[in-house]
Amino acid sequence: MDVTLPDAVVDGTGGRIVLLVLDGLGGLPDAETGLTELEAAATPNLDRLARTAALGLHQPVEPGIAPGSGPGHLALFGYDPIRYNIGRGVLSALGVGFDLRHGDVAVRLNFATLDGEGKVRDRRAGRPPDEENRRLVEKLRQGVQPRGGVEIFFEPEKEHRAVLVLRGEDLVPHVTDTDPQETGLEPLRVQARSTEARHAAEVLQSVLDGARKVLSDEPKANALLARGIDAYHHYPSFEERFELRALAIARYPMYRGVARLVGMDTCAIADSDAGSVAALAEHYAEYDFHFVHFKAMDSRGEDGDYAGKVKAIEAVDALIPEVEKLEPDVIVVTGDHSTPARLRSHSWHPVPILIASPWARPAADAAFGERACMRGELGVFPAKHIMTLALAHAGRLAKFGA
Amino acid sequence: MDVTLPDAVVDGTGGRIVLLVLDGLGGLPDAETGLTELEAAATPNLDRLARTAALGLHQPVEPGIAPGSGPGHLALFGYDPIRYNIGRGVLSALGVGFDLRHGDVAVRLNFATLDGEGKVRDRRAGRPPDEENRRLVEKLRQGVQPRGGVEIFFEPEKEHRAVLVLRGEDLVPHVTDTDPQETGLEPLRVQARSTEARHAAEVLQSVLDGARKVLSDEPKANALLARGIDAYHHYPSFEERFELRALAIARYPMYRGVARLVGMDTCAIADSDAGSVAALAEHYAEYDFHFVHFKAMDSRGEDGDYAGKVKAIEAVDALIPEVEKLEPDVIVVTGDHSTPARLRSHSWHPVPILIASPWARPAADAAFGERACMRGELGVFPAKHIMTLALAHAGRLAKFGA
Repeated sequence: MDVTLPDAVVDGTGGRIVLLVLDGLGGLPDAETGLTELEAAATPNLDRLARTAALGLHQPVEPGIAPGSGPGHLALFGYDPIRYNIGRGVLSALGVGFDLRHGDVAVRLNFATLDGEGKVRDRRAGRPPDEENRRLVEKLRQGVQPRGGVEIFFEPEKEHRAVLVLRGEDLVPHVTDTDPQETGLEPLRVQARSTEARHAAEVLQSVLDGARKVLSDEPKANALLARGIDAYHHYPSFEERFELRALAIARYPMYRGVARLVGMDTCAIADSDAGSVAALAEHYAEYDFHFVHFKAMDSRGEDGDYAGKVKAIEAVDALIPEVEKLEPDVIVVTGDHSTPARLRSHSWHPVPILIASPWARPAADAAFGERACMRGELGVFPAKHIMTLALAHAGRLAKFGA
Repeated sequence: MDVTLPDAVVDGTGGRIVLLVLDGLGGLPDAETGLTELEAAATPNLDRLARTAALGLHQPVEPGIAPGSGPGHLALFGYDPIRYNIGRGVLSALGVGFDLRHGDVAVRLNFATLDGEGKVRDRRAGRPPDEENRRLVEKLRQGVQPRGGVEIFFEPEKEHRAVLVLRGEDLVPHVTDTDPQETGLEPLRVQARSTEARHAAEVLQSVLDGARKVLSDEPKANALLARGIDAYHHYPSFEERFELRALAIARYPMYRGVARLVGMDTCAIADSDAGSVAALAEHYAEYDFHFVHFKAMDSRGEDGDYAGKVKAIEAVDALIPEVEKLEPDVIVVTGDHSTPARLRSHSWHPVPILIASPWARPAADAAFGERACMRGELGVFPAKHIMTLALAHAGRLAKFGA
């Protein structure tokens, strides 16, 4: 018998779950104090929750593997991040609200500046403002002709970023990026990585060539660089797998995209993290599951700003009582990966997690931090089990087997 | 997308890694003191390293499974020890430097003494000296005729051990050993374990019969016993998988063999463990990855010599400062399996591991021992992830996914 857990034991009733994702939460000890960002932060509310919670550390992908935001969130949502690995183009297209269909190929675009010799001078075309981005996208829509029986769609994202979607028969997305990742080099040609992908490679290259003609009179944004090329396939949804009506409250397109990939609804974008928590309160009764995303920890970590990351964590801590007022049956607090300020990048280090519910085995002296979580009941475990644990704590799983 | 981690995210640049394998390191508590061999040993250098390291316990194969040296080392090297399980004959052939080709069948041989009735009197033929071993092998080379279109090669190993390689078409190595493992019994006949293996079984049996004729006038080594029969297949190498130029510094053929199986270079055999560390210093700049093997812990454990195993660990501890002088980016210290003196054999117990790098989350009161490692950040984890962790700590992995 083929059994997929926890789907097989979901019973469709039970409590409400709130998942708070502090992006890039995990850190590394400061050389002087020996404390990580989370350990150093004053988090009275999270520490109080920790004393009623199951604690542990989760491994987003595998030991030693630093995940991108896509795999990090898919794992949190209970989707094996290796099996369900997906290109960033698809997440971007979903993030801007494009209605992807099965088989569509989505591509992340950068507007870029090429010099007179056709070499990349600026990979971001001087970061054009969003309205300039929309004007450039409209120009591409008017000027670039579809090729080889394939429909093409351009969508604006933010600043220098846009999305291209190719829709047609037999588009196999095993093709290479064109972004050389450095200035002073020409954009790369699209290469098929398998025989079946030749058609997609030719179509994409001809669209990029067409775009270059259309943009040739632009002073800055005179070319496109393409990356994160992948096809969209239907994912089994949160509703199908877990019988959860789920809402994503996220302020960045990327995280809205990955939530939509698994069938979550999204709501209007709040203008602050406090606004996100207000949206949670507003929509609380309509959904069984709420995912709320907080970005600042990751940004400060990538800046190498230890103190800034500490403050970002403290700012989320201050919002916790507003969440508690809603009396969720289960509150999960964790990150999608670690972003230690000392490393200035996503890292492989396991991520602290607390699952607050009446069904934990807490320690009286618990706190929310890397070392305290090491001693927790959950140990170090793969992130793909987090949803199963949350469903169990919410009383949403039946017994497995007779 | 087909993803094999960590291979898919290796980026080919980064720091140097030194892997120190203390064979059979893990142990069990002494009945009186309650301390394992490693906990009882005075290891000031390893304890100091532990306070800057990620600690944990690795499971070489699966919980409850005691590994042989082959699987134990393959797991340490990042190769799934079940998928990449291999017969000892292949490791012995590689260990003596034989240039195995894809499809060659390798067999471990013991020179043995049969009595007048053809029963085994001594499974090791009185442990002949190495020069006697070489004379016997030369006699076999001259006297034993190839059969059935199959080329045969005899190679000396040490004392009573030699290697036989069969090279020909359609040699399927699913055949039984001939070593009865006890004295007073006749050598077993080679049996095919599948229809396809009948040819290999007949060839091997006829070679062993031929050898018995050739050796019939020998007073002690008058027969061969065959075991560890397996075919050689190309393994994806360390260079291919991890983009690491790797050197194995090991004094015993078995460990040199398993290192060669994954494409490591080997250097001249040192005459002491201090000599191995001197070889590490000599070749340090030429390689990205160094594997240094220390044998004595395992030997004393198999002897049931608790105190001897403690001393063997202390002797390696004394060499640690010489390794640190090289300033490797990552130092990994562990064993390939446990060999508790009380059990006198390889065991299934998870093995202490430390990964010293600037990117650990160490505990101020850490030490290197089974119980201290249980509280470490790595938890209990499968050994096949050790290489991924080492690569991550050395800055040699890119982010997985967008």
